[in-house]
Amino acid sequence: MAKIRVTIWNEFDHEINNERAKANYPEGIHECLAKALKADDLEIATAWLEKDEEHGLSQEVLANTDVLLWWGHGRHGDVRDDVAARVAARVQQGMGFIALHSAHHSKPFRLLMGSPCDVRWRENDDKCVVWNVNAGHPITQGVPLYFFLEKEEMYGEYFSIPTPDELIFISWFEGGNAFRSGCTFTRGIGKIFYFQPGHEMYPSYHNKDVQKVIANAIRWARPAPERDFQAGAKMAPVVEKAGK
Amino acid sequence: MAKIRVTIWNEFDHEINNERAKANYPEGIHECLAKALKADDLEIATAWLEKDEEHGLSQEVLANTDVLLWWGHGRHGDVRDDVAARVAARVQQGMGFIALHSAHHSKPFRLLMGSPCDVRWRENDDKCVVWNVNAGHPITQGVPLYFFLEKEEMYGEYFSIPTPDELIFISWFEGGNAFRSGCTFTRGIGKIFYFQPGHEMYPSYHNKDVQKVIANAIRWARPAPERDFQAGAKMAPVVEKAGK
Amino acid sequence: MAKIRVTIWNEFDHEINNERAKANYPEGIHECLAKALKADDLEIATAWLEKDEEHGLSQEVLANTDVLLWWGHGRHGDVRDDVAARVAARVQQGMGFIALHSAHHSKPFRLLMGSPCDVRWRENDDKCVVWNVNAGHPITQGVPLYFFLEKEEMYGEYFSIPTPDELIFISWFEGGNAFRSGCTFTRGIGKIFYFQPGHEMYPSYHNKDVQKVIANAIRWARPAPERDFQAGAKMAPVVEKAGK
Amino acid sequence: MAKIRVTIWNEFDHEINNERAKANYPEGIHECLAKALKADDLEIATAWLEKDEEHGLSQEVLANTDVLLWWGHGRHGDVRDDVAARVAARVQQGMGFIALHSAHHSKPFRLLMGSPCDVRWRENDDKCVVWNVNAGHPITQGVPLYFFLEKEEMYGEYFSIPTPDELIFISWFEGGNAFRSGCTFTRGIGKIFYFQPGHEMYPSYHNKDVQKVIANAIRWARPAPERDFQAGAKMAPVVEKAGK
Repeated sequence: MAKIRVTIWNEFDHEINNERAKANYPEGIHECLAKALKADDLEIATAWLEKDEEHGLSQEVLANTDVLLWWGHGRHGDVRDDVAARVAARVQQGMGFIALHSAHHSKPFRLLMGSPCDVRWRENDDKCVVWNVNAGHPITQGVPLYFFLEKEEMYGEYFSIPTPDELIFISWFEGGNAFRSGCTFTRGIGKIFYFQPGHEMYPSYHNKDVQKVIANAIRWARPAPERDFQAGAKMAPVVEKAGK
Repeated sequence: MAKIRVTIWNEFDHEINNERAKANYPEGIHECLAKALKADDLEIATAWLEKDEEHGLSQEVLANTDVLLWWGHGRHGDVRDDVAARVAARVQQGMGFIALHSAHHSKPFRLLMGSPCDVRWRENDDKCVVWNVNAGHPITQGVPLYFFLEKEEMYGEYFSIPTPDELIFISWFEGGNAFRSGCTFTRGIGKIFYFQPGHEMYPSYHNKDVQKVIANAIRWARPAPERDFQAGAKMAPVVEKAGK
Repeated sequence: MAKIRVTIWNEFDHEINNERAKANYPEGIHECLAKALKADDLEIATAWLEKDEEHGLSQEVLANTDVLLWWGHGRHGDVRDDVAARVAARVQQGMGFIALHSAHHSKPFRLLMGSPCDVRWRENDDKCVVWNVNAGHPITQGVPLYFFLEKEEMYGEYFSIPTPDELIFISWFEGGNAFRSGCTFTRGIGKIFYFQPGHEMYPSYHNKDVQKVIANAIRWARPAPERDFQAGAKMAPVVEKAGK
Repeated sequence: MAKIRVTIWNEFDHEINNERAKANYPEGIHECLAKALKADDLEIATAWLEKDEEHGLSQEVLANTDVLLWWGHGRHGDVRDDVAARVAARVQQGMGFIALHSAHHSKPFRLLMGSPCDVRWRENDDKCVVWNVNAGHPITQGVPLYFFLEKEEMYGEYFSIPTPDELIFISWFEGGNAFRSGCTFTRGIGKIFYFQPGHEMYPSYHNKDVQKVIANAIRWARPAPERDFQAGAKMAPVVEKAGK
């Protein structure tokens, strides 16, 4: 089976301009994930906001990406509208899309959701427990029933997403909030997974369970072979009608 | 519009044999709910485990019930199998069914779910926050985004239910657990709602938001007019086939 | 209870420029529906593509619309992008949206879906049978298990929509095609219903069952009272944390 | 990866007692499927109603089955209740279950569904078109958008199943009926797939697309590694509470 071509996209701003984020991810979140996810069946590339004028996401790059990871937080507005639309279109054609942490408010994710995707939030070093509520799903294999993140940014309900196809995780936060923190969606024939952990101020992407979830999600989101179900869509009747 | 005929079924054992439960519900949970739910559009009756040899749930009672509430905790095993099957059959024909607290393990609920419906649990005076995750649903109208229960029995994932039709509430528990605490299901043409609050050791059914949720659920679960979609099911073709 | 303020939006082009469409709907599809839907609990207005430069959908009109019906077929491209975005935003805030027939390709619907929403189609006078697959849903009350449309435009799978929240109808077409022809979605807190019948060349909106479905959908899509769940979203912890 | 242990269970009555069924499946439906599904990653066994007094489904056989296929039509009532309950329990623990054709009315399927699972039906040599409505699902890979069965027993709505987790196929029947013909469900941590084709009077299991669907479903339904999420369910709090 061919390798899965993964592109990890990162805003890559906090890790340059904020000391605490830099301490967690000296080479950027994208590099941390690229190392953690390294595997024989994956071909991993990276891109970031200022990589080039298309944010490293040219038509060619996307055409050769099977699964795109997206991390952004403070600079969603700096992503070009046409690049965001290009990403969304490619997902609809089958590319997997894994939206990490604040990517709930990224341009491509909102284009795909058609919903505000707002959350409650709080930066207060909340302890976080991630609970698995879908034991048989490919994304939870090898992941325990629950795992701890010692500190995370609180993301809580009300999360104004469309009804997910599948609910995979619920997160508990020390301060009293709960959150649908792992959700799947389908757009066109592309598979989408949203996963909450990963505030830049905390080392969540060094956590083995977080890494395992993302690794599983990549395999799950791998595109099915392309099929143009609308080719010849104005087709002749498939069954001969009586008397015609 | 005709009144909705509600039967509130209660095990009614703890409130007789346990001092603390009795202090919360001197007349039983069923009477507490009957008073709280009193409304012009409802005709409320009650039944309990030892009301008569059919637990107060004769064929006639069920035939005249539009929505059945079910509370049980310690004596699920004492419910007659035939009565449980009768309840499940009536739900499939359209009667609404509201499973309260430990009713997740009641015989009728398990018959309807086809799944173990196990939970993690802990009696440790956990503070509980109930979060609304379905803002537009009839069951959440007039209910705030979240409400507190000062103390509740912890019910937590993994909750081995079938995938709910709709997820309505998620509960947060002080000790670190989260739970899909409000869920809808359909069986036959009957509507089912599971709702977690209500351990007998705490006064949760005196809480106005808990009462509002149950009141809403009754109206939501009201049966649609009966329609026998399988009548004449071995019917003649609905469209004349060519050459036949 | 306050009346439901309904706005019926129609492209209103075929009924002017095509003799056959005009014969079916001399005053336009919007007027046909307005008459059919007339009821004491509804306050019905109409708007159309060339009503004014905003297609009759000013901010004020939308702010005073509870449920918007949308019919368009040949001139989706002539709808202003800003008006389409305005409609989508208002849905996310709670306005109901009923997408009729070719509205699957309208700008507001596609913005809300985030998916191509393509279909197979054929104009060949196919007989159509609409099957109810959700007997207890408010949208199917008073609607028979199935009803016939003597001739309709075939709309068939593959329908590249997101997974619907609820599947309500499946349509059968004489030529061999099947279609998920009644589907619900949620975006923000707004309810959306897509319903297939209504090609301008056929008199489908004169059909009593089609009218009943739309009438039911209006009541179902009525917005819940507005609640700003993100107000104060960066809120103080709801539970006091130990040692803080 | 270990082989998937598949048991194909067949009523095996019509193929003995009915000439037309015997002509289609001289060795029985189970043998036809066993040959068609033969593959390096599968270890296939068969069982049938009269194989032994437990219908070939002893505790040991089930304990060593990863995915069970079930075909039954005329003799559902002859399956022992305890064996049916044993099958359902094993599914809840993770065994995959593929219910073929009339297995919608089999005892294990109904126990797992908690719903009547009635259908409309007609034996009238209806042409059948099976439409794929879930292009990215593992069960539809390598299966065309639609395929024909020259003649099949009509199974049509209303199909009184619980809301499926996923809708995979819709079937079109010549006589005017439509049917949710491929549906997935979860019970406990077991995966279930219902698939309509396969009346004994027609050679549907010789069809390559039908075979491909079943082959895919087996891989999809393979159980996840067992995990007892309720072990130690009355556990100590996972987070230390303040002041306790």
